[in-house]
Amino acid sequence: MNISHIEHLGIAVDNLEESIKYYEGVLGLKCYAIEEVADQKVKTAFFMVGSTKIELLESTSPDGPIGKFIEKKGPGIHHMAFAVKDTDEALKTAEERGVRLIDKVSRKGAEGLNIGFLHPKSTHGVLTELCSKKQ
Amino acid sequence: MNISHIEHLGIAVDNLEESIKYYEGVLGLKCYAIEEVADQKVKTAFFMVGSTKIELLESTSPDGPIGKFIEKKGPGIHHMAFAVKDTDEALKTAEERGVRLIDKVSRKGAEGLNIGFLHPKSTHGVLTELCSKKQ
Repeated sequence: MNISHIEHLGIAVDNLEESIKYYEGVLGLKCYAIEEVADQKVKTAFFMVGSTKIELLESTSPDGPIGKFIEKKGPGIHHMAFAVKDTDEALKTAEERGVRLIDKVSRKGAEGLNIGFLHPKSTHGVLTELCSKKQ
Repeated sequence: MNISHIEHLGIAVDNLEESIKYYEGVLGLKCYAIEEVADQKVKTAFFMVGSTKIELLESTSPDGPIGKFIEKKGPGIHHMAFAVKDTDEALKTAEERGVRLIDKVSRKGAEGLNIGFLHPKSTHGVLTELCSKKQ
């Protein structure tokens, strides 16, 4: 599996602009990018904290994954992403070890990373992403 | 505020033993300690991932904070903890910046750290912990 560190935390927020104000003005972190990921129906803001990114996620549509998450659970931490060497290899290993996959093969995520998700039913409730740098 | 990195993620689990099996057997991480924190009514298991710890939290009582969280939201990521230089100073700064505090002054947490929590009503839904090494 070769997990090196937590690449990022995805945090579902109601309002990206207000949340950025909190992360910058209260916590003193610096937003270094804002990106829209159309196929995930989100607008994201990125912060670096040590070697881990915080990705704030605001839904651009109530029927997107973040919109549904907030409706069900309220705003909060949505997923945890591990940096691996090779996402496809790691997905294959996870499946061999009995994990149900959301993505059978990697796809492109924010910042051009190769990403794939494990199903929270197989990960004790934590929506878990694996990601590796583009090759 | 002086946040250096994400010190740990607290993850609420139904069953510590089964969850350890997943984090070790599937993800390939290594549990390096198990500790009971009586005043929080939890049993915790620790893993190191890069510079961040994962703390799995199993409630030892249905009326503890983790028991209540699982009843309301199901198992999943419970809180995010930032490493700061001085928890008491950081709590003071947060309060000055309009954040509602759960802990007005720091107290002892797992691994002997000085910890204090910010209220999720003030942090856009994320239960946020600040922690610093014992002095």
